[in-house]
Amino acid sequence: MDELVDQLRAILGHGGVLDAAGDIAPYGTDWRGLFDHRPRAVVRPADTAGVAAAVRLCAASGVAIVPQGGNTSMVGGAVPGTAGSQIVLSLARMNAIRTIDRSGLTLEIEAGVTLRAAQLAAEAAGAFLPLSISAEGSAQIGGVISTNAGGNNTLRFGNTRDLVLGLEVVLPDGRIWNGLRRLRKDNTGYALRHLFAGAEGTLGIITAAVLRLAPMPRSRIACFCGLPSIGAVLDLYRRLRDEDEAALYAFEYISGTALDLALRHLPGARLPLERAAAHYVLVELATTRRAGDLGATLETVLGEALDAGSLDDAAIANSEAQRLAFWSLREHMADAQKRAGASIKNDVSVPVAAVPALLARAADMLAQHYPGARMAAFGHIGDGNIHLNVIQPEGADPARFEAQGDELMERVNTIIADLGGSFSAEHGIGLLKRHAFATWRGEVERDVMLRIKAAIDPAAIMNPGKIFEP
Amino acid sequence: MDELVDQLRAILGHGGVLDAAGDIAPYGTDWRGLFDHRPRAVVRPADTAGVAAAVRLCAASGVAIVPQGGNTSMVGGAVPGTAGSQIVLSLARMNAIRTIDRSGLTLEIEAGVTLRAAQLAAEAAGAFLPLSISAEGSAQIGGVISTNAGGNNTLRFGNTRDLVLGLEVVLPDGRIWNGLRRLRKDNTGYALRHLFAGAEGTLGIITAAVLRLAPMPRSRIACFCGLPSIGAVLDLYRRLRDEDEAALYAFEYISGTALDLALRHLPGARLPLERAAAHYVLVELATTRRAGDLGATLETVLGEALDAGSLDDAAIANSEAQRLAFWSLREHMADAQKRAGASIKNDVSVPVAAVPALLARAADMLAQHYPGARMAAFGHIGDGNIHLNVIQPEGADPARFEAQGDELMERVNTIIADLGGSFSAEHGIGLLKRHAFATWRGEVERDVMLRIKAAIDPAAIMNPGKIFEP
Repeated sequence: MDELVDQLRAILGHGGVLDAAGDIAPYGTDWRGLFDHRPRAVVRPADTAGVAAAVRLCAASGVAIVPQGGNTSMVGGAVPGTAGSQIVLSLARMNAIRTIDRSGLTLEIEAGVTLRAAQLAAEAAGAFLPLSISAEGSAQIGGVISTNAGGNNTLRFGNTRDLVLGLEVVLPDGRIWNGLRRLRKDNTGYALRHLFAGAEGTLGIITAAVLRLAPMPRSRIACFCGLPSIGAVLDLYRRLRDEDEAALYAFEYISGTALDLALRHLPGARLPLERAAAHYVLVELATTRRAGDLGATLETVLGEALDAGSLDDAAIANSEAQRLAFWSLREHMADAQKRAGASIKNDVSVPVAAVPALLARAADMLAQHYPGARMAAFGHIGDGNIHLNVIQPEGADPARFEAQGDELMERVNTIIADLGGSFSAEHGIGLLKRHAFATWRGEVERDVMLRIKAAIDPAAIMNPGKIFEP
Repeated sequence: MDELVDQLRAILGHGGVLDAAGDIAPYGTDWRGLFDHRPRAVVRPADTAGVAAAVRLCAASGVAIVPQGGNTSMVGGAVPGTAGSQIVLSLARMNAIRTIDRSGLTLEIEAGVTLRAAQLAAEAAGAFLPLSISAEGSAQIGGVISTNAGGNNTLRFGNTRDLVLGLEVVLPDGRIWNGLRRLRKDNTGYALRHLFAGAEGTLGIITAAVLRLAPMPRSRIACFCGLPSIGAVLDLYRRLRDEDEAALYAFEYISGTALDLALRHLPGARLPLERAAAHYVLVELATTRRAGDLGATLETVLGEALDAGSLDDAAIANSEAQRLAFWSLREHMADAQKRAGASIKNDVSVPVAAVPALLARAADMLAQHYPGARMAAFGHIGDGNIHLNVIQPEGADPARFEAQGDELMERVNTIIADLGGSFSAEHGIGLLKRHAFATWRGEVERDVMLRIKAAIDPAAIMNPGKIFEP
């Protein structure tokens, strides 16, 4: 008998609490298969008051709470610790679309709404939620905000935090902060919404949010390009950006190695170009203009890049099906790499002009220390964000390769630090990158963060062990 | 003899410390003439190490520090308290442009660079700093960030905080936080830059920043419109936004009353339209596209608004001189109102769809309680941000009218709160709006902010008395 669980059940009802081993197991594992930690129980409140009541009960007993949305973290941000003593609080039942203001372009939703459902709700109202990530079918808004997810449209619309106008948060003592404002301008004290966004659930539980929407684009055009060098990739990026930064919704990089893996391992995948190239880019332009002649813009810039020797070849999607096929290739990079063997993932960023240096130094480092390992780089190069994934040498032992993961990541992070970059561009810290956080973020910065953590969660019950090493 | 001042002079040199009554007086008054408080002394460090050393000395003696940039606060945010015991720390000598990365579109500058100088530095490198406020000739970047200034381009590029990629901050204990990263994506712990941006110097002193730039627009077009109703103003806004949100750089509102005051009181001012209207709007479209046919976009949308009865008349600027004349009218609103007598200023925001309700309710309230008072509303209506200024009745006693300021502002704020708005959209709290902050921001929100303040500035020496009432 677990008295706390009984008390939680008394508040939340039978369906609001799970504690059978089989029921709770999925909440303790992450989709990457990196962690398998058993929660003490799982609570699933149906509303903000239920979240607050559950938090108050846990706080009274000093029991740690792990907020969990779609559990799609890349870094173990939503699984409990190892001790079996932590309560997972799932937001999945709080999935109401509260209000859409088409005139003011705002959307108020609860934390458990999936990103895909939020996109569709906006679309149904004739508006556009400019936020797209691979996990959008499962990822829930509370987690998307708590991890400040990035994705494909960051280039044009910023990270998730840039779309958050207001938040409702249950604090670690169970009080509710109602900050659900929907204002573009509000200079009344500290920007608390920016503190909770990206805090990975360590300062409180986001229960609802107001997001900023954009008008729906009237036309889109996608283009798949082959390029001779990484310098040419940046040259094309700058040409497109300087010509029409407003229309540049995505500029996604795929290295030759990464594309080859996709062609080998993804059923039905084929190169959209006639000849292979050393580097590839997927460009998407979009506009709300009725007279938005995106094709002309694209042809002008591609023509100039071709003349300058910065472009080998380009295919413009001539149908929605082809546009989606381009994106499918990009979105299935991780799958393809999984089938190619064990991989060590680095989600890093540098100033965009430093991307060539990053790739060159990383290649040298790999050749020296991990001969045969394949660098399958891809990502949101317009943001300087590269998924610098390293695949095991063909035929090597996966487990032995994986065992080198921490060492390899530290070597990458050393290069990153030297280039003024970040060791975690969009995936956050979670459990996986705590050591890198302690190593690569200075003492002053960590001290300020720890003071904030202690000020807002003095009992340290809110997602403890994430971001900061215990 | 003042021992602390002697110690500061030993560190900063003779030119780095002012303490003669005549020298320090300007640092204790604000440009609106609301406050005249004498500082104990003024320190003017030339570099970050100097700021840190001065802060350490003051911290050791428990002496309060008031960071000051261009001293253009609308709310007394940069003047010392009344006791004559506080040290003003001026950033004016830290005015170096450190680096511009044209490729990555970032600008690293010191806190004392004026906004105008920063705009020009970006321009010289062929880039655009999309931040513009009336005080840009004097306002310094440190203050602009510390107050999260808004302005004319917020509609398209966000508030100041949205342009801040990195910060360098001297903390209240004199330690230096070097957060001068220039990354678009960096999810490594709490968003400290967003905490210091808008904190009004109460958590530390911003000494340098990395700002995000945009490509330089290739063409601009401005248009002055007369409209029959406030509903029509919003209708035109939505039409332009939905047609080409990316090109809509500014959408500024001027009420008929505000424009009449400008025509009466500004030498040489004239209405750019043939007939007077009830409401006016200044629209600016811009684009980086070479083939950016902004005129066609504008004519299409204006034609549709005319057909729908949402527009009386419009004049498109046919020269750069005329474009600047439109803007001059808009920028001199405050001057015109000053000449019309005493005024009580409200810088408020509501969801954009609620602007008509705000103006109607405010007019009713004024008619009931302040008969004859003139509501001269203008502002950044696309952001829902209205400068709802109230001018004394003609012939009334200015001092008697001004004495009603607090009461009138509270009546406005009651309407604002009811509409889900903010009592300070872009001006912040400073000394002037502390009471409104205590009244209109909930207890939970204030408590979280006070915990953060205590965690980062436990001795309460950093700009004490701002935001929070003592």
